[in-house]
Amino acid sequence: MTNLKHPYLLFLGQDNNELAIKTARGISYWRPDICIAEYAMAECKITLGLQRKTPKEAFNAGARTFVIGLANAGGEIAPEWVPAILDAIEAGLDIASGLHQKLSDFPEIKAAAKRKNILLHDIRHQQKSSIIGTGTKRGGNRILTIGTDCSVGKMYTSLAIEKEMKTRGYNATFRATGQTGIFIAGEGAPVDAVVSDFISGTVEQLCPDNNHDHWDIIEGQGSLFNPAFAGVSLGLLHGAQADILILCHEAGRETIKGMNDYPIPGLKDCIETNLKMARLTNPETRLGAISLNCRMTGPEFAHEYCRKLSDEFSVPCFDPLIQGVGEFVDGLEL
Amino acid sequence: MTNLKHPYLLFLGQDNNELAIKTARGISYWRPDICIAEYAMAECKITLGLQRKTPKEAFNAGARTFVIGLANAGGEIAPEWVPAILDAIEAGLDIASGLHQKLSDFPEIKAAAKRKNILLHDIRHQQKSSIIGTGTKRGGNRILTIGTDCSVGKMYTSLAIEKEMKTRGYNATFRATGQTGIFIAGEGAPVDAVVSDFISGTVEQLCPDNNHDHWDIIEGQGSLFNPAFAGVSLGLLHGAQADILILCHEAGRETIKGMNDYPIPGLKDCIETNLKMARLTNPETRLGAISLNCRMTGPEFAHEYCRKLSDEFSVPCFDPLIQGVGEFVDGLEL
Repeated sequence: MTNLKHPYLLFLGQDNNELAIKTARGISYWRPDICIAEYAMAECKITLGLQRKTPKEAFNAGARTFVIGLANAGGEIAPEWVPAILDAIEAGLDIASGLHQKLSDFPEIKAAAKRKNILLHDIRHQQKSSIIGTGTKRGGNRILTIGTDCSVGKMYTSLAIEKEMKTRGYNATFRATGQTGIFIAGEGAPVDAVVSDFISGTVEQLCPDNNHDHWDIIEGQGSLFNPAFAGVSLGLLHGAQADILILCHEAGRETIKGMNDYPIPGLKDCIETNLKMARLTNPETRLGAISLNCRMTGPEFAHEYCRKLSDEFSVPCFDPLIQGVGEFVDGLEL
Repeated sequence: MTNLKHPYLLFLGQDNNELAIKTARGISYWRPDICIAEYAMAECKITLGLQRKTPKEAFNAGARTFVIGLANAGGEIAPEWVPAILDAIEAGLDIASGLHQKLSDFPEIKAAAKRKNILLHDIRHQQKSSIIGTGTKRGGNRILTIGTDCSVGKMYTSLAIEKEMKTRGYNATFRATGQTGIFIAGEGAPVDAVVSDFISGTVEQLCPDNNHDHWDIIEGQGSLFNPAFAGVSLGLLHGAQADILILCHEAGRETIKGMNDYPIPGLKDCIETNLKMARLTNPETRLGAISLNCRMTGPEFAHEYCRKLSDEFSVPCFDPLIQGVGEFVDGLEL
């Protein structure tokens, strides 16, 4: 990861699905300095607000890596994207993907990369070896974002807290656990891509023993209430040994993403279940805040709902995009 | 897996650790018909009660596959075993391993296998592609063994229940989720070796939609209270959608295996937490029985403790080796 060349050309694929391009949107939002342009197939009308450039135009403007800024449930590289990837290789760009399927699984991509002498980065396939969790208590402070579901704002909230804490002089480090976070931070551990026996051990290594005044802000994944991904969330919860949990929730979402038969859990149940499970490895875990994503409901609703939840759960409640995370950070002591 | 050649020569490694050879012991106990002999390094004094034969002797007696019947926490092939593996290849035996590390990671093993034209079977590395859980309700009946920890008797209990149910004419299928179970059943899914995003999806495929009178007996893994492996256990619990949970526990074990700071959970807490989490994907889940492993405490204690637990939790309680699983199966209706 550390040798990914900047700047990036962000690839958005062929669909008009905002959730699918959350990787690209996250990178361009948090690291605008390294994103030179976006590129998409003709059918794709959504935009990050960057200039649209072909791989050749982007290379001529300075781009060095073509980032497949897409997340789909199966983690597969769509065959429809292959011509665009080959164009990018032809233009001289390295290719970086955070999907489960490997770039090198496509013989034509592998051959073109070899011929043009460019690098293929599969950031989900960098696991070294077996890392079994130990449960051993580590020094330092840890904050973990948890969620009522996937794609509710855990990475955004984590990055916003890191930024606010750094502004105030805290020694804080964002710990990336997903592909977007890893593209942003330049390092991290793709926990949903590790062998399941090693989830908690991988997270233990991601946020190791540290000084008493250091804070890790760990990006959560999934939800204990998501039937597909709860195992990842529990391993992350145990490995993180977080002192503080921040519950992330999208206001107005009624069912689990892609599963209409599964309602979003009640916040009280979600908080209590996460605290119960987290206390296995850190008996002192507490809820620190509730982070609401109010993109569907708007700011007026957000203010009212935040007050209500703050009263009910006795913790700060905010939409990081509307109120910011300052009230939560106010409550931390150095 | 299906083309593993019988009979097996079971390899026990170099340690004198009963837990480490649980794979070999399980295979020889449940499939004595296909185990021709055992082999171990000179330092290893423990035995399965089979004849000890060198690979060459075993081959001459009919053996066709050398099974690395060992389980260690990291899933690694010890360098000390390599000479024995090379001897087995030289003798003409295929090699089968259920460890995380691949046989072909050792260049000398790979080269020898190629030269002798024998097969290397890494049963933990047979995952096809991305399998995301759906949470969709499936037909048929499912029993899942859960545990207070690893290595408490989940596979044994599952196989004992399958055997008893088949004897009584039930249409029952043991579903293997670990290496030993897969060697015994000839098929299965090594859930602790799949990519963490796919745990529950893999289990959904392992015990698919079925007839209303069919029973899957699913082998559990780990424990929700094991800080290293709880993610696997939760994904399994969600994917299984079990109608009946059987709690497995080793009487007298006080701390989580390999983690002296972590006490074994109370049975009530363990049952309630598993039911709570399992009800996400099957709201009708219930506790069906408690299976005690009393190897440390003996039969007298077992009878008394089983009566006590049976009264407390209002379900059958048995050591499958002492009382058998008949009382539990009595309570099922066709």
